[in-house]
Amino acid sequence: MNNHFPMPAFGQQRAVVERVTPEIDGGRYAIKAIVGETLNIEADIIADGHDKLSARLMYKHESDKDWSEVVMQHVVNDRWIAHFNVEKQGYYHYTVEAWVDHIASWQHEVDAKVRDGQHLKVELMQGELFLKAMAKKAKGDDKKAIQEAAKAMTTESRYDEAIRIALSNQMSEWFTKYPERQEPFRYRELMVYVDRKKAAFSAWYSMFPRSAAREIGKHGTFKDVEKLLPRIAEMGFDVLYLPPIHPIGTTHRKGKNNTLNALPDDVGVPYGIGSSEGGHTAIHSELGSLQDFKHLIEACKAYDIEIAMDLAIQCSPDHPWVKEHPEWFKILPDGTIKYAENPPKKYQDIYPVNFETENWQALWNELKIVIKTWAEWGVRIIRVDNPHTKSFVFWEWVIAEIKKDYPDMIFLSEAFTKPKVMQQLAKLGYSQSYTYYVWRTHKAEIIEYMTELTKGEMKYYFRPNFWPNTHDINPYMLQNGHEPLFLIRYFMAATLVGNYGIFGPTYEYLYHQPYPNKEEYAYSEKYEIKYWNWEHRNKLTYIISQVNKIRKENSAFHDTNNIEFCTTDSDQLLAYIKTSNDGNKILCIVNLDGYNRKSGFVNVPLWKIRKNDWEAYRVHDLLTGATYTWTGERNFVELDPHILPFHLFRIEDI
Amino acid sequence: MNNHFPMPAFGQQRAVVERVTPEIDGGRYAIKAIVGETLNIEADIIADGHDKLSARLMYKHESDKDWSEVVMQHVVNDRWIAHFNVEKQGYYHYTVEAWVDHIASWQHEVDAKVRDGQHLKVELMQGELFLKAMAKKAKGDDKKAIQEAAKAMTTESRYDEAIRIALSNQMSEWFTKYPERQEPFRYRELMVYVDRKKAAFSAWYSMFPRSAAREIGKHGTFKDVEKLLPRIAEMGFDVLYLPPIHPIGTTHRKGKNNTLNALPDDVGVPYGIGSSEGGHTAIHSELGSLQDFKHLIEACKAYDIEIAMDLAIQCSPDHPWVKEHPEWFKILPDGTIKYAENPPKKYQDIYPVNFETENWQALWNELKIVIKTWAEWGVRIIRVDNPHTKSFVFWEWVIAEIKKDYPDMIFLSEAFTKPKVMQQLAKLGYSQSYTYYVWRTHKAEIIEYMTELTKGEMKYYFRPNFWPNTHDINPYMLQNGHEPLFLIRYFMAATLVGNYGIFGPTYEYLYHQPYPNKEEYAYSEKYEIKYWNWEHRNKLTYIISQVNKIRKENSAFHDTNNIEFCTTDSDQLLAYIKTSNDGNKILCIVNLDGYNRKSGFVNVPLWKIRKNDWEAYRVHDLLTGATYTWTGERNFVELDPHILPFHLFRIEDI
Repeated sequence: MNNHFPMPAFGQQRAVVERVTPEIDGGRYAIKAIVGETLNIEADIIADGHDKLSARLMYKHESDKDWSEVVMQHVVNDRWIAHFNVEKQGYYHYTVEAWVDHIASWQHEVDAKVRDGQHLKVELMQGELFLKAMAKKAKGDDKKAIQEAAKAMTTESRYDEAIRIALSNQMSEWFTKYPERQEPFRYRELMVYVDRKKAAFSAWYSMFPRSAAREIGKHGTFKDVEKLLPRIAEMGFDVLYLPPIHPIGTTHRKGKNNTLNALPDDVGVPYGIGSSEGGHTAIHSELGSLQDFKHLIEACKAYDIEIAMDLAIQCSPDHPWVKEHPEWFKILPDGTIKYAENPPKKYQDIYPVNFETENWQALWNELKIVIKTWAEWGVRIIRVDNPHTKSFVFWEWVIAEIKKDYPDMIFLSEAFTKPKVMQQLAKLGYSQSYTYYVWRTHKAEIIEYMTELTKGEMKYYFRPNFWPNTHDINPYMLQNGHEPLFLIRYFMAATLVGNYGIFGPTYEYLYHQPYPNKEEYAYSEKYEIKYWNWEHRNKLTYIISQVNKIRKENSAFHDTNNIEFCTTDSDQLLAYIKTSNDGNKILCIVNLDGYNRKSGFVNVPLWKIRKNDWEAYRVHDLLTGATYTWTGERNFVELDPHILPFHLFRIEDI
Repeated sequence: MNNHFPMPAFGQQRAVVERVTPEIDGGRYAIKAIVGETLNIEADIIADGHDKLSARLMYKHESDKDWSEVVMQHVVNDRWIAHFNVEKQGYYHYTVEAWVDHIASWQHEVDAKVRDGQHLKVELMQGELFLKAMAKKAKGDDKKAIQEAAKAMTTESRYDEAIRIALSNQMSEWFTKYPERQEPFRYRELMVYVDRKKAAFSAWYSMFPRSAAREIGKHGTFKDVEKLLPRIAEMGFDVLYLPPIHPIGTTHRKGKNNTLNALPDDVGVPYGIGSSEGGHTAIHSELGSLQDFKHLIEACKAYDIEIAMDLAIQCSPDHPWVKEHPEWFKILPDGTIKYAENPPKKYQDIYPVNFETENWQALWNELKIVIKTWAEWGVRIIRVDNPHTKSFVFWEWVIAEIKKDYPDMIFLSEAFTKPKVMQQLAKLGYSQSYTYYVWRTHKAEIIEYMTELTKGEMKYYFRPNFWPNTHDINPYMLQNGHEPLFLIRYFMAATLVGNYGIFGPTYEYLYHQPYPNKEEYAYSEKYEIKYWNWEHRNKLTYIISQVNKIRKENSAFHDTNNIEFCTTDSDQLLAYIKTSNDGNKILCIVNLDGYNRKSGFVNVPLWKIRKNDWEAYRVHDLLTGATYTWTGERNFVELDPHILPFHLFRIEDI
């Protein structure tokens, strides 16, 4: 008989594995984890008929030759579960294998018949066959014991013993250890990229190094930045992010406040990268030498701080690439290079790189060289400027490529754009991502956004990094400089998620003058040198220092997805609880109204803090030192924004 | 530079297509549709940057060489949509292609700059290049017009005309018709299997042909069945399903009421298939000859009825395969063949086929021959008995294989088992599936189950077939023989979904005597011949005939997924509305309490019937002929189960 369809290779296969989680788009993208994390893997596993099934979670690090296995457990409704720990940086592969377990089915059959009072014979003959096959796989004591059990099966005088063995836990252990894995179904291979801990838990401080000088009008240097390290460390930050530090172009240079014609002493925008001094692998000489920069990187180590560089793939008209590789840019029909536009707006000081160039391979390699060069200087964190305007295929390739040599490299995606584009960049490999946090200010918005980030599919691959401001964003909500609002927006960024950052002195010193009708700063540091009185300390300084210290000391803050929101009586009272596996329990309560005192009841989810309804527990405000004794679910709070608009409670046993 | 990862083949590609729907498990399984149906395809489509995108839905029948294309439209949040009609039986392939549309981006740029009052030059040079390339693809009048437009672009004296052309709808039409499809992203290919209409809309009547005789105690024949066709047609059924019609084994034959030792005159269970007379391709001689059976198939045509055969892959110990192919069965260590067991229960009259046999290819081919033989007799509908106890890989292969030669073959899965196993069988190709309908009796259960079937992923591949009883199931709820309950359970089966069936005379004549403490019939026709007075007609007969007629005449019943439930005042009043694209609108209201009169308000979803709140409309009970004038959303109903426990309203304009 002629068949239209070939018969499958494994016609005797009976099990099927489906809907493995976590899985992103059918395994197209890797999920993300942190060294030391435990991953829970679930799967639907079924087969025809009524036989018992067995299943194994299989996993291996990319450097491993062999798979490790974990026995999966059936939970309910054909859903199976197992977990494994990721111990090393890099990619792990994982999948699920399942098969019809004839020995387990046999044990079940023997059990049912013995309970029914039947005398077994052929069933024990079958048991003997299973045990003999098992004995071949086993070693040492096991081997001997299994051989002996096999003999008992068909020895008439040992009938009772044979039944006892057949139904024993020992038998279950043996066939779990030496499974008869007939025609197993192997699910497709999935991947997880394991980062070091900082990818999920970090506090970023951002500043323009040219504003680091202690003298008004003077161009700051790496040496000046070095002098600030004790202060940044005192505040508890562990990433120091610097906007581009490369030579700045002069052609069509922008002046103060983004004016079109720079004055001779205007310092330009660091994002107008490249001059005759060099491009992305050169250092702006006014900041110091490459030696100075490397010295700064080294100096940071004593303070547990890492430098994050800024990768902006764009050129000033003076960038060496413009002469050497004009084909990397878009050439217009009149022979000129197309500058950046957002029609009708023109940005004549910037040439975007054209990722559709015929010569894309050379461009990709050059960009990889840039990142490798920085890595060789000792940089392990890169904030990427506007990654959503460079091609997706490039990011996927270059991030994987770099991480192969530098698995501890962290990439932060500065994409403020449409949701699905931001998600795509995270899927392609970005370790952390900027978010809509700035524009989520009401209670319902915050809860909805956090739920999207931590309870849906995004939790597997998108690591949010919350910023209450950036050097590009002066939020409308903070433009009146009201201190309680600065405190609130800072506090939530630092306590809702694992990764957060601020645009340093600007935020700390409550600088808020807006560029008229825009969500930007007037006299922005992007266009000019700013003088800061670095000796000044205020309430913000104190709270920042305290919160960062508390974050480090309390493991509940080291994860983002462990958040649960509590219901409260008020639209202005936001409460959330974070708990860690080692028993740390944090309850944050924020009065979102920066002007008026608010009070009301907070409903503490007792299942989450493992207390009974009648049990008393202590809530200990780690910021003020105050402690209160609470009982049960419903407890009263009152927060005055002019004193402190939030509680940061640790929940403690009494 | 040595790369760890090869660069992708399409490094200039910028668009990405994701989350195409419908799609089952990443395209692993085909979705289902009906000839003439319109499929809505959606996709997430994004690219880097701010350029415009274009996308096409692509589809082709398996017999087509070339793809057909439909322009996709952006809806919101990067979600795109398009639809296509399936006209032929068999597989269609579909996918989505998207690319960065440089001409659309250029048109947008020209528009923004013209509005800004800029005078364009290089932009029009670019336009000329686009138009020249377009002209090469175009033909006839288009070609001339595009060439002329290209000339206008860079003719200084025709500047205004050039701008007008650039921004014209004509230009948009041109670049939609002759797209510059640069490095398109092609999504993976997905499939839909297109069935004939009966796969989604059918009314099944099931009976044992041996009970068709008009004389008490006499073995019925195919000729007797033929005489019943006018009556079955009068009741409006279009599928006549017969349990197995093959020779019945005698070894360990079961007696009446499933007793172990048959008496000499016991007729046996038709599911104990095979004797010295033959197996699955032979006919039980007491029913008649193969000629008689073929005559019955032919005779059905005049009544628009089709015969459904029953495929039970199992054998009596007397089946020819047992001698010819003992290796197709499970051989125990003592050399005997393993009979069916559900430990501790034993079914010694049945040998299950062993799908794990080493000789599985021969087994598969033999089973295919069985189905092909039936197909050659003229059978196009097969009800498969317990498909969930035969291997999944077999079903996927054999269904595809048979449908290649007989694309109009319909397979009904009789799997009453765990949800994920039932879903799996439908994914693998079953045209229709038995359901949990029998056990969904309360209002909330019915709404929840219908929502699962029609609003989630199952709607794409799982076609429910609702049976209020079967020859195996005598539902507890009907075991008191209360007529209103028989009416209610029948009515909902017939009006909730497109496919339904009843176990014929048993249901119609309210036979309800249970086997003690079981959801089964006493004196079941599975074990004995039953005499029915086929001349008898009752209220059930009348309602069944009316409902089947109304189903055929009202297109809203021809689909299953078009259902919406209405809120009502009562847990006993279930109301649902079904509407079709051609304007047919049906509102069913059921009093679920079979004993007490219930009244209350029903909330008609006005958006669904396209009425304004102040508009009157007529509800016309197609069963009783009564009409009522209703206005707005909230309307009163009262249903007395002893008169008629439901309304079957057509909603009509006044």
